[in-house]
Amino acid sequence: MISLAELQHRIDRGELSPQAAITQSLQAIGGKEQAVGAFVCRADNPRAASQGLLRGIAVGIKDIIDTADFPTEMGSSIYKGWRPRADAPGVSMLKRAGATIIGKTTTTAFAALDPTATLNPQHPGHTPGGSSSGSAAAVGAGMIPLALGTQTGGSVIRPASFCGVAAIKPSYRLLPTVGVKCYSWTLDTVGLFAAGVKDLAHGLAAVTGRPELLNEAAKDRPRIGLVMQDFAGAPEKAGWEALRTAASAAERAGASVRTLALPEIVAEAWRIHPIVQDFEAYLALAWEYQTHHEALPPLLRARLDASADITSAAYDGARGVANRARRAFAESFDGFDILLTFSAPGAAPKGLASTGDPRFNRLWTLLGVPCVNIPAYVADGLPVGVQVIARFGDDAGALQGARFVEAALARS
Amino acid sequence: MISLAELQHRIDRGELSPQAAITQSLQAIGGKEQAVGAFVCRADNPRAASQGLLRGIAVGIKDIIDTADFPTEMGSSIYKGWRPRADAPGVSMLKRAGATIIGKTTTTAFAALDPTATLNPQHPGHTPGGSSSGSAAAVGAGMIPLALGTQTGGSVIRPASFCGVAAIKPSYRLLPTVGVKCYSWTLDTVGLFAAGVKDLAHGLAAVTGRPELLNEAAKDRPRIGLVMQDFAGAPEKAGWEALRTAASAAERAGASVRTLALPEIVAEAWRIHPIVQDFEAYLALAWEYQTHHEALPPLLRARLDASADITSAAYDGARGVANRARRAFAESFDGFDILLTFSAPGAAPKGLASTGDPRFNRLWTLLGVPCVNIPAYVADGLPVGVQVIARFGDDAGALQGARFVEAALARS
Repeated sequence: MISLAELQHRIDRGELSPQAAITQSLQAIGGKEQAVGAFVCRADNPRAASQGLLRGIAVGIKDIIDTADFPTEMGSSIYKGWRPRADAPGVSMLKRAGATIIGKTTTTAFAALDPTATLNPQHPGHTPGGSSSGSAAAVGAGMIPLALGTQTGGSVIRPASFCGVAAIKPSYRLLPTVGVKCYSWTLDTVGLFAAGVKDLAHGLAAVTGRPELLNEAAKDRPRIGLVMQDFAGAPEKAGWEALRTAASAAERAGASVRTLALPEIVAEAWRIHPIVQDFEAYLALAWEYQTHHEALPPLLRARLDASADITSAAYDGARGVANRARRAFAESFDGFDILLTFSAPGAAPKGLASTGDPRFNRLWTLLGVPCVNIPAYVADGLPVGVQVIARFGDDAGALQGARFVEAALARS
Repeated sequence: MISLAELQHRIDRGELSPQAAITQSLQAIGGKEQAVGAFVCRADNPRAASQGLLRGIAVGIKDIIDTADFPTEMGSSIYKGWRPRADAPGVSMLKRAGATIIGKTTTTAFAALDPTATLNPQHPGHTPGGSSSGSAAAVGAGMIPLALGTQTGGSVIRPASFCGVAAIKPSYRLLPTVGVKCYSWTLDTVGLFAAGVKDLAHGLAAVTGRPELLNEAAKDRPRIGLVMQDFAGAPEKAGWEALRTAASAAERAGASVRTLALPEIVAEAWRIHPIVQDFEAYLALAWEYQTHHEALPPLLRARLDASADITSAAYDGARGVANRARRAFAESFDGFDILLTFSAPGAAPKGLASTGDPRFNRLWTLLGVPCVNIPAYVADGLPVGVQVIARFGDDAGALQGARFVEAALARS
């Protein structure tokens, strides 16, 4: 994979020109894209900026995020050839920081569950996960050092786990969702994919203009809460192995690791996530549903069909649960620095019929807390990640904790 | 003005066909639009639906709200002739309810402070207010029974007060802001304009599918908290007279009216509103700012220029104040059913150089609580409103309280 931090370092020292760094991505795309299919479209003649922390960094943008210079097709024939007027703020922020938008990456239609044709870069017989399929695959294949995705259930952390890359779903709204096709306004969150945690930190700090996210002083003996998410069912063997491996490595590296049982209201929040998501999706996609029903892909169409019956009372109740769970969860954090849990039930499912199951992700999206995926285990050639979670707003802490676990895994 | 509830009643009883109701609006537009200038564009041959609670209701849509069938120009040359692909969910919800979109109404550029050419329908020498200038003026002139606007500071309640119409800024996100040009994602709120409070209730209930908003059982003796908003400075004489008139009428009608002093953290929330708003606007409009700086109108451009220096630390601090203020405000409500306060400092300013001052509105937008404007006083031929405020999520209570005050004013 291409390390963003290493590219930055070499560019800063004058060992590599920004344009040469872009050319490196173009060559990698030339060599690998045909086998992976991560891109919907690409820049014709991408130029590096001469200024900015992200000069020379080629970035892929999930194709539900508006771009003025590329079509934005939402993974759907309904938006075939569609050209937004403006860049989404997330794209403008990247450009301000000097990044080069290298192309748009594949997305399941409207970031729902109908798979794309993208293949897992670690094993072409498996899904890369979804809905940010192309962004995870493009970084995992070593084509680009940075990509933007979005998560409403588990669409950043799950494909990152399946493709063996680092990713952060930041605190809710740390990155604006303006100009991003909405599925659920309470849940949609813009996230980043990169080679490792340090790369994520450098990318997020540059995009947001928040240098505090770079905090490199690793905590010596972090207090880690191990969360089993029993309410979400049991993981597969590979999921268990990934979490066990990460927890043991962290403990050997000096962390204290204790199992944390979450309060019942938090389990209830896990249960009501689909009510919030689907009630809002039925409104957010009302125009597509009313005017292009037959053009919607089958899984999404069935889901929206079923969502018409969710009452506003059920939705209001679910929002109330979410609010109480956010408060209760914040209190559960007493005595811990970070939490550690599954990124996905197991490795990427075989074939392309499914993008995998977001059941270990959706609670954290609803709580709005920062989550970082780290590859922790390999099962039959397929990577399996774990996720590090911090308090709402403590994205620096999530990245710092993830650096610790990543380093512990590298030593073990 | 055209009463939505009365049209509905006559259509329900078969006294008026839905198409005849639309024709009535078209005729009113034909007679008044030239003098007011409320519309940016209009439907060529608008047809009434045969089904739905809002069949026969002609609706104007503020021109920062996406429509698939009309250009959406954001009040700016940058979006001249721009055609979105999809209707915003708010527009789809109106259509689902049977409404006829009759046209797009004028907006200040990107819903900021640079005035439009729209004239106040009560007095052409004065501003109709902004930023939802055309929506307030079109309803106030009696051209249409319902219009959609948005509020980030005071862009629904203030023009409603200036144009002598009823309006509701509902609880944050009761109506989706998806497909609405973003200025501040924490603040932007979609609202409705109509002839009276009953019309608002019928409109909002139909759009949202929430019949509980129709609750017509007026509370006998509501407990009203009178809020002076000292932190926002003093109103003009006309503003005082409006509030005094409404409070006296309510008291005579059986309400208890007591002055309520808000806690200091709420005053602090009033002060930090511009930090939240401007930090987010600088990101939300990043593409326009970076690529079309010279095409931005002067007030907005100057505001964005000044916003570049707001630090993320200041923004994070402001969001913290807002969260604490929301909790403290909810507690202040103990012992009251509704609050009553100024809708604007006074009557509509003379001329078209300014759209007026949102200083009595911005706190409530930040708190996310429902606000209803009711005309309460006339100063030299110009209407002045008051606003009724309820707890977050209690939009039914805000409407019910506003009905009480409106009826009390009618009797006095």
